[in-house]
Amino acid sequence: MRLSNMLFVTLREDPAEAEIPSHKLLLRAGYIRRIGSGIYAYLPLMWRVLQKVSQIVREEMNATGAQECLLPQLQPSELWKESGRWDTYTKAEGIMFAFPDRQEREVALGPTHEEVITTIARDMIRSYRQLPVHLYQIQTKFRDEIRPRFGLMRGREFIMKDGYSFHTDEESLKKTYQDMYQAYSNMLRRSGLKFRPVEADSGAIGGSGSTEFMILAEAGEDEVLYTEDGQYSANVEKAVSLPPDAEPSPFTSYEKRETPNTPTIDSLSEFLKCSPTQIVKNVLYQAIYDNGMTVLVLVSIRGDQDVNEVKLNNELVKLAEQYNAKTLLSLTVPDATAQQKWASKPLPLGYIAPDIADDYINSTPPNPPLVRGGTGSGEVAPSVTGGTEASPQSGTSPLDKGGQGGVIPQFLRLVDKTAVDLKNFVTGSNESGYHVVGANWGEQFQLPKIEVDVRKAKIGDRAIHNPSQTLQSARGIEAGHIFQLGTKYSKAMGATYTSESGEECPLYMGCYGVGVSRLAQAAVEQSYDKDGIIWPVMIAPYHVIICVPNVGDIEQMAAAEKLYAELNKAGIETLLDDRNERAGVKFKDADLIGIPYRIVTGRSLKDGKLEVVERATKKSQDIPLDKVVSTLKDWINAALQ
Amino acid sequence: MRLSNMLFVTLREDPAEAEIPSHKLLLRAGYIRRIGSGIYAYLPLMWRVLQKVSQIVREEMNATGAQECLLPQLQPSELWKESGRWDTYTKAEGIMFAFPDRQEREVALGPTHEEVITTIARDMIRSYRQLPVHLYQIQTKFRDEIRPRFGLMRGREFIMKDGYSFHTDEESLKKTYQDMYQAYSNMLRRSGLKFRPVEADSGAIGGSGSTEFMILAEAGEDEVLYTEDGQYSANVEKAVSLPPDAEPSPFTSYEKRETPNTPTIDSLSEFLKCSPTQIVKNVLYQAIYDNGMTVLVLVSIRGDQDVNEVKLNNELVKLAEQYNAKTLLSLTVPDATAQQKWASKPLPLGYIAPDIADDYINSTPPNPPLVRGGTGSGEVAPSVTGGTEASPQSGTSPLDKGGQGGVIPQFLRLVDKTAVDLKNFVTGSNESGYHVVGANWGEQFQLPKIEVDVRKAKIGDRAIHNPSQTLQSARGIEAGHIFQLGTKYSKAMGATYTSESGEECPLYMGCYGVGVSRLAQAAVEQSYDKDGIIWPVMIAPYHVIICVPNVGDIEQMAAAEKLYAELNKAGIETLLDDRNERAGVKFKDADLIGIPYRIVTGRSLKDGKLEVVERATKKSQDIPLDKVVSTLKDWINAALQ
Repeated sequence: MRLSNMLFVTLREDPAEAEIPSHKLLLRAGYIRRIGSGIYAYLPLMWRVLQKVSQIVREEMNATGAQECLLPQLQPSELWKESGRWDTYTKAEGIMFAFPDRQEREVALGPTHEEVITTIARDMIRSYRQLPVHLYQIQTKFRDEIRPRFGLMRGREFIMKDGYSFHTDEESLKKTYQDMYQAYSNMLRRSGLKFRPVEADSGAIGGSGSTEFMILAEAGEDEVLYTEDGQYSANVEKAVSLPPDAEPSPFTSYEKRETPNTPTIDSLSEFLKCSPTQIVKNVLYQAIYDNGMTVLVLVSIRGDQDVNEVKLNNELVKLAEQYNAKTLLSLTVPDATAQQKWASKPLPLGYIAPDIADDYINSTPPNPPLVRGGTGSGEVAPSVTGGTEASPQSGTSPLDKGGQGGVIPQFLRLVDKTAVDLKNFVTGSNESGYHVVGANWGEQFQLPKIEVDVRKAKIGDRAIHNPSQTLQSARGIEAGHIFQLGTKYSKAMGATYTSESGEECPLYMGCYGVGVSRLAQAAVEQSYDKDGIIWPVMIAPYHVIICVPNVGDIEQMAAAEKLYAELNKAGIETLLDDRNERAGVKFKDADLIGIPYRIVTGRSLKDGKLEVVERATKKSQDIPLDKVVSTLKDWINAALQ
Repeated sequence: MRLSNMLFVTLREDPAEAEIPSHKLLLRAGYIRRIGSGIYAYLPLMWRVLQKVSQIVREEMNATGAQECLLPQLQPSELWKESGRWDTYTKAEGIMFAFPDRQEREVALGPTHEEVITTIARDMIRSYRQLPVHLYQIQTKFRDEIRPRFGLMRGREFIMKDGYSFHTDEESLKKTYQDMYQAYSNMLRRSGLKFRPVEADSGAIGGSGSTEFMILAEAGEDEVLYTEDGQYSANVEKAVSLPPDAEPSPFTSYEKRETPNTPTIDSLSEFLKCSPTQIVKNVLYQAIYDNGMTVLVLVSIRGDQDVNEVKLNNELVKLAEQYNAKTLLSLTVPDATAQQKWASKPLPLGYIAPDIADDYINSTPPNPPLVRGGTGSGEVAPSVTGGTEASPQSGTSPLDKGGQGGVIPQFLRLVDKTAVDLKNFVTGSNESGYHVVGANWGEQFQLPKIEVDVRKAKIGDRAIHNPSQTLQSARGIEAGHIFQLGTKYSKAMGATYTSESGEECPLYMGCYGVGVSRLAQAAVEQSYDKDGIIWPVMIAPYHVIICVPNVGDIEQMAAAEKLYAELNKAGIETLLDDRNERAGVKFKDADLIGIPYRIVTGRSLKDGKLEVVERATKKSQDIPLDKVVSTLKDWINAALQ
């Protein structure tokens, strides 16, 4: 391709809209153009990169026996209602574009395709003899992100490969899952990327096990914890570890102490000269379920530990059924406005005890009377609140705008494993400026009946598989995610097969996604310098760029044209910068767009040589004219292995 | 690919949802699956066909120097408001999905991309030195069709190649347009299709000239008129021709005649013993503009001719400005309910005179008084109706639900060229059961001031380029459409370049679309028999299918496996039907899915031969084992030329 024929425009300045290097560079180098918030046009250079990534993905998928198809982007709401995810995706996470069509039927733009593929499987799969089967597609997906950012990293429209496999049983699913683990590793390796597979949270997709493939980069939105021995790596959202041992408590008897200005664990442990490991921290959350039910959740956890809100969210989703709800709409730390709706007086933040309900949370129903959930000991007890009918209403009743009273929430106490075995611990008193010391479960406070693991693993923790290993931390960009879904969707949507023994069984299912457009930008995030992008050869839009320093020089142009023809003939993808621009501009542009090899038809021509510069290293060498094509072919083939 | 590993399910019965053969066959043969109204999943066999069509399109586009890119499917409403098409696409035609995002900003799903590409061109093109440039994409498009039907032919989601070229001037645009004409012809020829390029109406896309590429098939939604000499072909919507000569009128003096039961031209000409060519037919339409203005349009046309509503629509769009409107929302023949809003008494349908306004259309404004447009002679006269402010309101004022009176519409008379020169003609009298004869323009009736060509050309008409040629008719499926847009979008959106002489000029623009998924189905519509699909070799999902009559027969399976490996090695795309099914089922399925060549590893094996059956002709021949691969390779290569 001749640059003179391309719509090729580079920018000298960083665009104001971009925050991270890869986003800036893709905009500056003319790969992408912003059309709206989180919406980009892929210009011809970018499209070539995306096609190369797609082709690598396709080859790796086909090699496993998966078959390519294309599913619709418009999805009828009925399918999502069958699976039970309509509310989660349109309300709770709210990331699905949904709207009525001209017949006033709700449709959505697919962010993922479990529902569509399951309905196809339900129609087409009858017998175990048709299994396993694996379909995938490479397609533009949509997410109405709250905060689209970082260009293609978190756009509202992006390209994904998503695949779905169906199986007779878990063993067959696990085999395909392993194949995908390998295929995904191959894809990322073949795209020239440094990456790490990590244990992951399955989120709204669901299922039992999942692995994320993280492209390592400083700008990554995810934190990965791993051990040096290579035996463990996990997204911090999912990571587990051994907490440090608790120190013995210096307090031997129960006592209320004045502890002024100690709302934080640090200030409190300093004031009391005790270890944070001897404090029980009580963190209050407000959960709202899809039936309108508000649940105040008080989590007691050891003072030196933090709550992992993804784990907490998962625990609360598990409890949805107990609240007659299907899904959790939101989980927040209640701010002052939220507190007004149910707090009988201002909360003693920083001084909360393991049970706050009786002291601070409205138990007097406003008019009309509403049934209050929970008991004094703070257990989950929707079944004793006066009936399932009343409960959902308590969250949706009109609020008392006067501030005090109104919503009567349910109250739920949870204890993290780290806080269960503490003795003579320090904790809040429900009174500002005061804590208690020497407290014990079963004495001053009831141990919450629900014990959970919602602790956030962190750098420096000991690994569970080998306590002599400590967790390290790295930043990553999630490029792929593979899931063992099990029978979640097939059961919800009635997708079954007839087994060899004639039984009707639910299909086992896996799903596997890789972000093609995100991966392409992540490659830049992992590989650039002050002058621009450094594409891995495998996914570079072109392998070679020929820069003609002076297009008015007949000899230079003739050499360039001859070389251009020869390189094209040899299957080397080549750009010819035949623009009427200064050599300096051309070199700057070549560096910026990041083509792996630059050939200059300049001074060395008189010695029968061409200057070849490697973009990554900036190393330059003069190569005899008749050796240039074969040398480049060797280099490129070596890189593509 | 082994059929045993594919999600391969065929249906014996025609699905109820399908009306035309290609739709039935694609469903039955497991190529597509309906997910919702006008929404289909492309299963692996279909996806291979679509990929092949796409690749042919891509190669032909790249050969012209066009560059592939990918533009967003989500489009901000602002762009469409800039071009002035937001209302046309969301209201008038209403075919664009549009909805608010989570920030309550209107976005739409692109049915076409003139706005997006023009905004990119506006940003990136500065100088004549960057021109011409041509970008294209292959992408799923969306249309919220009123009546989705015929499978992929008129779906709500479909795959298009759309390209957009930018130029300094009309000459450069015309050159690319010609290149596209050739490229489109190549694409269709290389896809193995019988087609015809035809002159076309440009519709809501706009611009000066356009050509449609029609795939000829009985089930086509479009009618094509053409001449045998190959010099003329046009969509009936656009076609022009010479009308038959009018016969001399038998009437010499003006007279009102009782003509009972003659509401049609046929009954009237029979009753009066005159030729339809001596009758002036007056057809009443109701046009509603986007500002709410209702215009009653009375078209006078020669009795033997019909009104082409696409041409009439175009004429009325041109008049929008005169009604202070931007676009036409609807054009209908007013039914009884519509008539009630403005008719002062029941219309004498079938007996309407060239002016009906004074007799039948309310001129007494209801309370509050509204200004009535038009005069007794029925001219377009919005400028004398009492001000532009009042006019739009006349169409949107609350209706008098009593039936009589309410909306006071504008009234507009148009005369088709065929009716202008008639003398002593027959026409309506505005009284049921009566016509007038021997009428003349300028005597009993004013000739409408606006003369138009809204006549429908039809089979048997003489061609304009050569009156000895008569128009023939054929049905076609519109697979492609190329447009010379000129400066319509660049002027509306301010997309300019600096010319060689330093002037700021609007970009000239062309756009070129081909329906990839529609083309694929049209190929089936053009090529099938009672047993199933007959794919052209060029776009068949596989070239060869090997049917093993008995998979339990070791010799048969061994021969099949050997052949399968050899064919794959030779680059021949092969399906292996290794399912444990009866031979009859396999042969039926092979015919149904339409693979060009079927090889049977059956009885002929004992003679060292394989039976090869050509799908299209059903011709069978036994070919020696060692000649099968080379013979097939020759046949396939010959077909792909």
